[in-house]
Amino acid sequence: MAKSQSVSLSVIRRLPRYYRFLSDLKAAGILRISSRELSSRMGLTASQIRQDLNCFGGFGQQGYGYNVEQLHAEIGNILGVGKKHKTILLGAGNLGKAVAAHMDFEAKGFDLIGVFETDKQMIGKNLRGLKILSSEMLVPFCKEHQPLVAILCIPKDSARKASDLLVELGIKAFWNFTHYDFAVSHPGIVVENVHLGDSLMILSYRVNETLEGNSTDNKE
Amino acid sequence: MAKSQSVSLSVIRRLPRYYRFLSDLKAAGILRISSRELSSRMGLTASQIRQDLNCFGGFGQQGYGYNVEQLHAEIGNILGVGKKHKTILLGAGNLGKAVAAHMDFEAKGFDLIGVFETDKQMIGKNLRGLKILSSEMLVPFCKEHQPLVAILCIPKDSARKASDLLVELGIKAFWNFTHYDFAVSHPGIVVENVHLGDSLMILSYRVNETLEGNSTDNKE
Repeated sequence: MAKSQSVSLSVIRRLPRYYRFLSDLKAAGILRISSRELSSRMGLTASQIRQDLNCFGGFGQQGYGYNVEQLHAEIGNILGVGKKHKTILLGAGNLGKAVAAHMDFEAKGFDLIGVFETDKQMIGKNLRGLKILSSEMLVPFCKEHQPLVAILCIPKDSARKASDLLVELGIKAFWNFTHYDFAVSHPGIVVENVHLGDSLMILSYRVNETLEGNSTDNKE
Repeated sequence: MAKSQSVSLSVIRRLPRYYRFLSDLKAAGILRISSRELSSRMGLTASQIRQDLNCFGGFGQQGYGYNVEQLHAEIGNILGVGKKHKTILLGAGNLGKAVAAHMDFEAKGFDLIGVFETDKQMIGKNLRGLKILSSEMLVPFCKEHQPLVAILCIPKDSARKASDLLVELGIKAFWNFTHYDFAVSHPGIVVENVHLGDSLMILSYRVNETLEGNSTDNKE
Protein backbone atom coordinates (compact mmCIF):
# COMPACT_ATOMS: atom_id res chain seq x y z
CA MET A 1 0.00 0.00 0.00
CA ALA A 2 1.70 3.13 -1.21
CA LYS A 3 0.12 5.74 1.02
CA SER A 4 1.18 9.26 0.16
CA GLN A 5 2.20 11.43 3.09
CA SER A 6 -0.30 14.22 3.42
CA VAL A 7 -3.76 13.17 2.32
CA SER A 8 -6.33 15.87 2.95
CA LEU A 9 -8.92 15.29 5.63
CA SER A 10 -11.69 15.76 3.07
CA VAL A 11 -10.46 12.72 1.14
CA ILE A 12 -10.11 10.76 4.39
CA ARG A 13 -13.66 11.71 5.34
CA ARG A 14 -14.94 10.01 2.17
CA LEU A 15 -13.15 6.73 2.86
CA PRO A 16 -15.67 5.28 5.33
CA ARG A 17 -18.34 5.77 2.72
CA TYR A 18 -16.30 3.85 0.13
CA TYR A 19 -15.72 1.23 2.77
CA ARG A 20 -19.46 0.86 3.43
CA PHE A 21 -20.30 0.64 -0.27
CA LEU A 22 -17.60 -1.94 -0.84
CA SER A 23 -18.84 -3.95 2.15
CA ASP A 24 -22.27 -4.07 0.52
CA LEU A 25 -20.82 -5.05 -2.87
CA LYS A 26 -18.74 -7.74 -1.22
CA ALA A 27 -21.77 -9.06 0.65
CA ALA A 28 -23.67 -9.14 -2.65
CA GLY A 29 -20.95 -11.32 -4.17
CA ILE A 30 -19.72 -8.68 -6.64
CA LEU A 31 -16.06 -9.26 -7.48
CA ARG A 32 -15.13 -6.30 -9.70
CA ILE A 33 -16.48 -2.82 -10.20
CA SER A 34 -15.52 0.01 -12.54
CA SER A 35 -15.09 3.53 -11.22
CA ARG A 36 -18.06 4.47 -13.45
CA GLU A 37 -20.34 1.89 -11.86
CA LEU A 38 -19.12 2.77 -8.37
CA SER A 39 -19.67 6.46 -9.11
CA SER A 40 -23.25 5.98 -10.26
CA ARG A 41 -24.02 4.00 -7.10
CA MET A 42 -22.39 6.56 -4.83
CA GLY A 43 -23.51 9.75 -6.54
CA LEU A 44 -19.92 10.89 -7.11
CA THR A 45 -18.16 11.42 -10.43
CA ALA A 46 -15.89 8.64 -11.71
CA SER A 47 -12.99 11.06 -11.87
CA GLN A 48 -13.56 12.03 -8.21
CA ILE A 49 -13.37 8.36 -7.26
CA ARG A 50 -10.20 7.76 -9.28
CA GLN A 51 -8.65 10.88 -7.76
CA ASP A 52 -9.56 9.87 -4.20
CA LEU A 53 -8.22 6.35 -4.56
CA ASN A 54 -5.09 7.57 -6.31
CA CYS A 55 -4.17 9.44 -3.12
CA PHE A 56 -3.36 6.04 -1.68
CA GLY A 57 -1.54 4.71 -4.68
CA GLY A 58 -4.63 3.66 -6.65
CA PHE A 59 -5.95 0.13 -6.70
CA GLY A 60 -7.60 -0.09 -10.10
CA GLN A 61 -6.38 -1.60 -13.32
CA GLN A 62 -7.14 0.38 -16.47
CA GLY A 63 -10.06 -1.31 -18.19
CA TYR A 64 -10.55 -3.94 -15.51
CA GLY A 65 -12.02 -1.83 -12.72
CA TYR A 66 -11.41 -2.42 -9.05
CA ASN A 67 -11.14 -5.74 -7.30
CA VAL A 68 -13.88 -5.28 -4.68
CA GLU A 69 -12.46 -7.52 -1.98
CA GLN A 70 -8.96 -6.14 -2.34
CA LEU A 71 -10.09 -2.50 -2.39
CA HIS A 72 -12.30 -3.13 0.63
CA ALA A 73 -9.40 -4.68 2.52
CA GLU A 74 -7.00 -1.89 1.53
CA ILE A 75 -9.35 0.89 2.60
CA GLY A 76 -10.04 -0.96 5.85
CA ASN A 77 -6.31 -1.17 6.31
CA ILE A 78 -5.86 2.56 5.69
CA LEU A 79 -8.65 3.34 8.16
CA GLY A 80 -7.05 0.99 10.65
CA VAL A 81 -10.21 -1.01 11.32
CA GLY A 82 -8.14 -4.04 12.29
CA LYS A 83 -6.57 -2.31 15.30
CA LYS A 84 -7.79 -2.80 18.84
CA HIS A 85 -7.25 0.55 20.55
CA LYS A 86 -8.27 0.39 24.19
CA THR A 87 -11.25 2.65 24.65
CA ILE A 88 -13.32 3.88 27.56
CA LEU A 89 -16.77 5.46 27.61
CA LEU A 90 -17.68 8.27 30.00
CA GLY A 91 -21.40 8.59 30.55
CA ALA A 92 -23.94 5.78 30.46
CA GLY A 93 -27.06 7.89 30.12
CA ASN A 94 -29.36 7.60 27.10
CA LEU A 95 -26.73 8.70 24.66
CA GLY A 96 -23.88 6.65 26.12
CA LYS A 97 -26.10 3.59 26.19
CA ALA A 98 -27.14 4.12 22.58
CA VAL A 99 -23.55 4.59 21.44
CA ALA A 100 -22.39 1.51 23.33
CA ALA A 101 -25.24 -0.65 22.10
CA HIS A 102 -25.24 0.61 18.55
CA MET A 103 -21.61 0.73 17.50
CA ASP A 104 -19.54 -2.13 16.23
CA PHE A 105 -16.33 -0.96 17.91
CA GLU A 106 -14.44 -4.16 17.22
CA ALA A 107 -15.00 -3.86 13.46
CA LYS A 108 -13.79 -0.26 13.46
CA GLY A 109 -10.48 -0.44 15.29
CA PHE A 110 -11.52 -0.09 18.91
CA ASP A 111 -11.87 -2.25 21.98
CA LEU A 112 -14.29 -0.89 24.59
CA ILE A 113 -12.83 -1.91 27.95
CA GLY A 114 -14.53 0.36 30.50
CA VAL A 115 -17.69 2.41 31.06
CA PHE A 116 -17.90 5.11 33.75
CA GLU A 117 -20.86 6.95 35.20
CA THR A 118 -21.56 9.27 38.14
CA ASP A 119 -25.24 8.29 38.50
CA LYS A 120 -25.35 5.74 41.35
CA GLN A 121 -28.43 4.07 39.85
CA MET A 122 -26.43 3.05 36.80
CA ILE A 123 -23.24 1.91 38.51
CA GLY A 124 -22.91 -1.87 38.64
CA LYS A 125 -25.37 -2.44 35.79
CA ASN A 126 -24.26 -4.14 32.60
CA LEU A 127 -23.64 -2.38 29.32
CA ARG A 128 -22.38 -4.34 26.35
CA GLY A 129 -21.03 -7.00 28.67
CA LEU A 130 -19.17 -4.49 30.82
CA LYS A 131 -20.08 -3.63 34.39
CA ILE A 132 -20.60 0.14 34.61
CA LEU A 133 -18.02 1.59 37.00
CA SER A 134 -18.21 4.60 39.28
CA SER A 135 -16.35 7.58 37.86
CA GLU A 136 -14.27 7.46 41.05
CA MET A 137 -12.64 4.38 39.54
CA LEU A 138 -11.47 6.31 36.48
CA VAL A 139 -7.97 7.18 37.69
CA PRO A 140 -6.97 3.75 39.01
CA PHE A 141 -8.56 2.07 35.98
CA CYS A 142 -6.63 4.22 33.50
CA LYS A 143 -3.39 3.74 35.41
CA GLU A 144 -3.86 -0.01 35.28
CA HIS A 145 -5.24 -0.49 31.75
CA GLN A 146 -3.85 2.56 29.91
CA PRO A 147 -6.67 3.19 27.48
CA LEU A 148 -5.83 5.36 24.48
CA VAL A 149 -9.26 6.61 23.44
CA ALA A 150 -12.17 8.10 25.40
CA ILE A 151 -15.76 8.51 24.27
CA LEU A 152 -17.43 11.47 25.96
CA CYS A 153 -21.18 11.18 26.45
CA ILE A 154 -21.32 13.42 29.52
CA PRO A 155 -22.85 16.87 30.07
CA LYS A 156 -20.91 19.81 28.64
CA ASP A 157 -20.27 21.21 32.12
CA SER A 158 -18.25 18.17 33.16
CA ALA A 159 -16.43 17.79 29.85
CA ARG A 160 -13.62 20.29 30.40
CA LYS A 161 -12.58 18.85 33.75
CA ALA A 162 -12.93 15.27 32.54
CA SER A 163 -10.94 15.87 29.37
CA ASP A 164 -8.12 17.64 31.26
CA LEU A 165 -7.89 14.67 33.60
CA LEU A 166 -8.05 12.14 30.78
CA VAL A 167 -5.27 13.83 28.82
CA GLU A 168 -3.17 13.75 31.99
CA LEU A 169 -3.96 10.04 32.27
CA GLY A 170 -2.63 9.39 28.77
CA ILE A 171 -5.75 9.55 26.58
CA LYS A 172 -4.65 10.53 23.07
CA ALA A 173 -7.99 10.71 21.27
CA PHE A 174 -11.58 11.63 22.01
CA TRP A 175 -14.83 10.75 20.35
CA ASN A 176 -16.68 13.77 21.59
CA PHE A 177 -20.48 13.82 21.79
CA THR A 178 -20.58 16.76 24.21
CA HIS A 179 -20.90 20.38 23.17
CA TYR A 180 -17.57 21.11 24.79
CA ASP A 181 -15.24 22.52 22.18
CA PHE A 182 -11.71 21.15 22.25
CA ALA A 183 -10.44 23.32 19.40
CA VAL A 184 -8.21 25.58 21.46
CA SER A 185 -7.30 23.36 24.39
CA HIS A 186 -5.12 20.27 24.10
CA PRO A 187 -3.34 20.69 20.78
CA GLY A 188 -1.93 17.39 19.60
CA ILE A 189 -4.87 15.43 20.93
CA VAL A 190 -7.19 13.93 18.32
CA VAL A 191 -10.80 14.99 18.70
CA GLU A 192 -13.53 13.67 16.48
CA ASN A 193 -16.70 15.59 17.26
CA VAL A 194 -20.25 14.37 16.87
CA HIS A 195 -22.27 17.51 17.38
CA LEU A 196 -25.80 16.23 16.90
CA GLY A 197 -27.24 19.65 17.69
CA ASP A 198 -25.15 21.23 14.92
CA SER A 199 -26.31 18.60 12.47
CA LEU A 200 -29.92 19.33 13.43
CA MET A 201 -29.41 23.06 12.88
CA ILE A 202 -27.88 22.40 9.46
CA LEU A 203 -30.95 20.33 8.65
CA SER A 204 -33.09 23.26 9.75
CA TYR A 205 -31.19 25.62 7.44
CA ARG A 206 -31.47 23.26 4.50
CA VAL A 207 -35.17 22.57 5.04
CA ASN A 208 -35.86 26.30 5.00
CA GLU A 209 -33.68 26.80 1.96
CA THR A 210 -35.59 24.08 0.12
CA LEU A 211 -38.95 25.48 1.13
CA GLU A 212 -37.81 28.82 -0.27
CA GLY A 213 -37.12 27.08 -3.57
CA ASN A 214 -33.32 27.07 -3.47
CA SER A 215 -31.39 23.98 -4.36
CA THR A 216 -29.74 21.72 -1.87
CA ASP A 217 -26.89 19.30 -2.15
CA ASN A 218 -26.84 15.92 -0.44
CA LYS A 219 -23.47 14.85 -1.69
CA GLU A 220 -20.79 14.57 0.94
CA MET B 1 -30.57 40.37 7.09
CA ALA B 2 -28.93 40.64 3.72
CA LYS B 3 -28.42 36.98 2.93
CA SER B 4 -26.54 36.45 -0.29
CA GLN B 5 -27.98 33.84 -2.63
CA SER B 6 -25.57 30.96 -2.81
CA VAL B 7 -23.64 30.49 0.40
CA SER B 8 -21.47 27.40 0.31
CA LEU B 9 -22.41 24.48 2.52
CA SER B 10 -19.00 24.65 4.20
CA VAL B 11 -19.80 28.13 5.53
CA ILE B 12 -23.26 26.99 6.58
CA ARG B 13 -21.73 24.05 8.40
CA ARG B 14 -19.75 26.45 10.57
CA LEU B 15 -22.78 28.51 11.60
CA PRO B 16 -24.05 26.18 14.34
CA ARG B 17 -20.65 26.43 15.99
CA TYR B 18 -20.79 30.23 15.93
CA TYR B 19 -24.28 29.97 17.31
CA ARG B 20 -23.12 27.77 20.21
CA PHE B 21 -20.22 30.05 21.05
CA LEU B 22 -22.44 33.10 20.95
CA SER B 23 -25.00 31.35 23.18
CA ASP B 24 -22.25 30.81 25.75
CA LEU B 25 -21.05 34.41 25.49
CA LYS B 26 -24.60 35.65 25.87
CA ALA B 27 -25.14 33.42 28.90
CA ALA B 28 -21.91 34.83 30.38
CA GLY B 29 -23.29 38.35 30.01
CA ILE B 30 -20.77 39.41 27.34
CA LEU B 31 -22.25 42.16 25.16
CA ARG B 32 -19.61 42.74 22.47
CA ILE B 33 -16.82 40.67 20.99
CA SER B 34 -14.17 41.43 18.39
CA SER B 35 -13.50 39.00 15.56
CA ARG B 36 -10.02 38.60 17.04
CA GLU B 37 -11.35 37.56 20.46
CA LEU B 38 -13.96 35.29 18.87
CA SER B 39 -11.28 33.74 16.68
CA SER B 40 -8.98 32.94 19.60
CA ARG B 41 -11.86 31.29 21.46
CA MET B 42 -12.95 29.28 18.44
CA GLY B 43 -9.56 28.34 17.04
CA LEU B 44 -10.32 30.01 13.70
CA THR B 45 -8.55 32.99 12.15
CA ALA B 46 -10.15 36.41 12.53
CA SER B 47 -10.23 36.81 8.77
CA GLN B 48 -12.05 33.47 8.40
CA ILE B 49 -14.69 34.71 10.84
CA ARG B 50 -15.10 38.04 9.05
CA GLN B 51 -15.32 36.24 5.73
CA ASP B 52 -17.92 33.76 7.01
CA LEU B 53 -20.12 36.42 8.54
CA ASN B 54 -19.77 38.67 5.50
CA CYS B 55 -21.51 35.96 3.46
CA PHE B 56 -24.66 37.03 5.24
CA GLY B 57 -24.10 40.73 4.94
CA GLY B 58 -21.77 41.07 7.93
CA PHE B 59 -22.88 42.15 11.36
CA GLY B 60 -19.78 43.81 12.76
CA GLN B 61 -18.85 47.45 13.03
CA GLN B 62 -15.25 48.27 12.25
CA GLY B 63 -13.46 48.85 15.56
CA TYR B 64 -16.49 48.00 17.69
CA GLY B 65 -16.66 44.26 17.19
CA TYR B 66 -19.87 42.27 17.09
CA ASN B 67 -22.94 42.80 19.21
CA VAL B 68 -23.24 39.33 20.77
CA GLU B 69 -27.00 39.28 21.25
CA GLN B 70 -27.73 40.64 17.79
CA LEU B 71 -25.29 38.30 16.04
CA HIS B 72 -26.68 35.34 17.99
CA ALA B 73 -30.21 36.26 16.98
CA GLU B 74 -29.23 36.80 13.34
CA ILE B 75 -27.43 33.49 13.03
CA GLY B 76 -30.34 31.77 14.74
CA ASN B 77 -32.59 33.44 12.23
CA ILE B 78 -30.44 32.27 9.29
CA LEU B 79 -30.45 28.73 10.67
CA GLY B 80 -34.20 28.94 11.14
CA VAL B 81 -34.16 27.83 14.77
CA GLY B 82 -37.39 29.72 15.41
CA LYS B 83 -39.39 27.54 12.99
CA LYS B 84 -41.58 24.68 14.12
CA HIS B 85 -41.33 22.10 11.35
CA LYS B 86 -43.50 19.10 12.10
CA THR B 87 -41.20 16.14 12.61
CA ILE B 88 -41.64 12.42 13.16
CA LEU B 89 -39.19 9.85 14.49
CA LEU B 90 -39.01 6.32 13.10
CA GLY B 91 -37.42 3.87 15.50
CA ALA B 92 -37.56 4.02 19.29
CA GLY B 93 -34.70 1.63 20.02
CA ASN B 94 -31.62 2.73 21.93
CA LEU B 95 -30.62 5.26 19.33
CA GLY B 96 -34.09 6.68 18.73
CA LYS B 97 -34.63 7.00 22.47
CA ALA B 98 -31.30 8.75 22.91
CA VAL B 99 -31.98 11.16 20.06
CA ALA B 100 -35.47 11.93 21.37
CA ALA B 101 -34.32 12.39 24.95
CA HIS B 102 -31.15 14.29 24.14
CA MET B 103 -32.12 16.82 21.51
CA ASP B 104 -33.69 20.18 22.08
CA PHE B 105 -35.82 20.06 18.93
CA GLU B 106 -37.90 23.09 19.85
CA ALA B 107 -34.81 25.30 20.12
CA LYS B 108 -33.55 24.15 16.73
CA GLY B 109 -36.54 24.64 14.46
CA PHE B 110 -38.42 21.38 14.87
CA ASP B 111 -41.54 20.10 16.57
CA LEU B 112 -41.51 16.36 17.26
CA ILE B 113 -45.12 15.24 16.87
CA GLY B 114 -44.93 11.47 16.42
CA VAL B 115 -42.76 8.44 17.21
CA PHE B 116 -43.17 5.11 15.38
CA GLU B 117 -41.83 1.68 16.16
CA THR B 118 -42.36 -1.89 14.97
CA ASP B 119 -41.34 -3.55 18.24
CA LYS B 120 -44.61 -4.37 20.04
CA GLN B 121 -42.92 -4.07 23.43
CA MET B 122 -42.24 -0.39 22.83
CA ILE B 123 -45.60 0.59 21.32
CA GLY B 124 -47.76 2.54 23.76
CA LYS B 125 -44.86 3.56 25.96
CA ASN B 126 -44.02 7.21 26.44
CA LEU B 127 -41.10 8.98 24.83
CA ARG B 128 -40.61 12.68 25.40
CA GLY B 129 -44.26 13.05 26.26
CA LEU B 130 -45.42 11.24 23.12
CA LYS B 131 -47.05 7.83 23.07
CA ILE B 132 -45.01 5.56 20.79
CA LEU B 133 -47.21 4.50 17.87
CA SER B 134 -47.20 1.31 15.84
CA SER B 135 -45.57 1.80 12.45
CA GLU B 136 -48.90 0.67 10.99
CA MET B 137 -50.19 4.09 12.03
CA LEU B 138 -47.61 5.90 9.91
CA VAL B 139 -49.73 6.39 6.79
CA PRO B 140 -52.91 7.66 8.47
CA PHE B 141 -50.84 9.82 10.86
CA CYS B 142 -48.93 11.49 8.02
CA LYS B 143 -52.09 12.03 6.01
CA GLU B 144 -53.70 13.74 9.00
CA HIS B 145 -50.78 15.76 10.40
CA GLN B 146 -48.59 16.26 7.30
CA PRO B 147 -45.15 16.23 8.93
CA LEU B 148 -42.35 17.71 6.85
CA VAL B 149 -39.30 16.06 8.43
CA ALA B 150 -38.51 12.46 9.42
CA ILE B 151 -35.75 11.22 11.70
CA LEU B 152 -34.62 7.73 10.76
CA CYS B 153 -33.30 5.60 13.63
CA ILE B 154 -34.25 2.28 12.07
CA PRO B 155 -32.14 -0.59 10.70
CA LYS B 156 -30.58 -0.03 7.29
CA ASP B 157 -32.63 -2.85 5.76
CA SER B 158 -35.90 -1.04 6.45
CA ALA B 159 -34.62 2.39 5.50
CA ARG B 160 -35.10 2.22 1.73
CA LYS B 161 -38.72 1.09 1.93
CA ALA B 162 -39.51 3.52 4.73
CA SER B 163 -37.94 6.48 2.98
CA ASP B 164 -39.72 5.73 -0.31
CA LEU B 165 -43.02 5.65 1.56
CA LEU B 166 -42.25 8.80 3.53
CA VAL B 167 -41.34 10.77 0.41
CA GLU B 168 -44.65 9.65 -1.10
CA LEU B 169 -46.37 10.88 2.06
CA GLY B 170 -44.87 14.33 1.65
CA ILE B 171 -41.72 14.20 3.80
CA LYS B 172 -39.27 16.75 2.42
CA ALA B 173 -36.27 16.22 4.70
CA PHE B 174 -34.58 13.42 6.57
CA TRP B 175 -32.28 13.38 9.56
CA ASN B 176 -30.71 10.06 8.70
CA PHE B 177 -28.99 7.96 11.38
CA THR B 178 -29.14 4.77 9.31
CA HIS B 179 -26.41 3.54 7.01
CA TYR B 180 -28.79 3.75 4.11
CA ASP B 181 -27.35 6.09 1.51
CA PHE B 182 -29.81 8.50 -0.03
CA ALA B 183 -27.30 10.09 -2.41
CA VAL B 184 -28.69 8.66 -5.61
CA SER B 185 -32.35 8.16 -4.77
CA HIS B 186 -34.77 11.02 -4.12
CA PRO B 187 -33.07 14.03 -5.62
CA GLY B 188 -34.60 17.22 -4.25
CA ILE B 189 -35.13 15.73 -0.82
CA VAL B 190 -32.92 17.13 1.93
CA VAL B 191 -30.90 14.49 3.74
CA GLU B 192 -28.68 15.32 6.67
CA ASN B 193 -26.69 12.21 7.55
CA VAL B 194 -25.34 11.27 10.93
CA HIS B 195 -23.11 8.33 10.14
CA LEU B 196 -21.71 7.49 13.56
CA GLY B 197 -19.82 4.52 12.13
CA ASP B 198 -18.07 6.76 9.60
CA SER B 199 -17.11 9.18 12.34
CA LEU B 200 -15.67 6.30 14.36
CA MET B 201 -13.62 5.12 11.37
CA ILE B 202 -12.27 8.63 10.85
CA LEU B 203 -11.26 8.63 14.50
CA SER B 204 -9.52 5.32 13.92
CA TYR B 205 -7.59 6.76 10.97
CA ARG B 206 -6.56 9.86 12.90
CA VAL B 207 -5.50 7.91 15.99
CA ASN B 208 -3.24 5.75 13.86
CA GLU B 209 -1.88 8.77 12.02
CA THR B 210 -1.03 10.41 15.35
CA LEU B 211 0.59 7.28 16.71
CA GLU B 212 2.72 7.21 13.57
CA GLY B 213 3.84 10.74 14.38
CA ASN B 214 1.92 12.60 11.70
CA SER B 215 0.05 15.76 12.53
CA THR B 216 -3.66 15.95 12.92
CA ASP B 217 -6.09 18.79 12.58
CA ASN B 218 -9.06 19.30 14.87
CA LYS B 219 -10.35 22.43 13.23
CA GLU B 220 -13.62 22.05 11.39
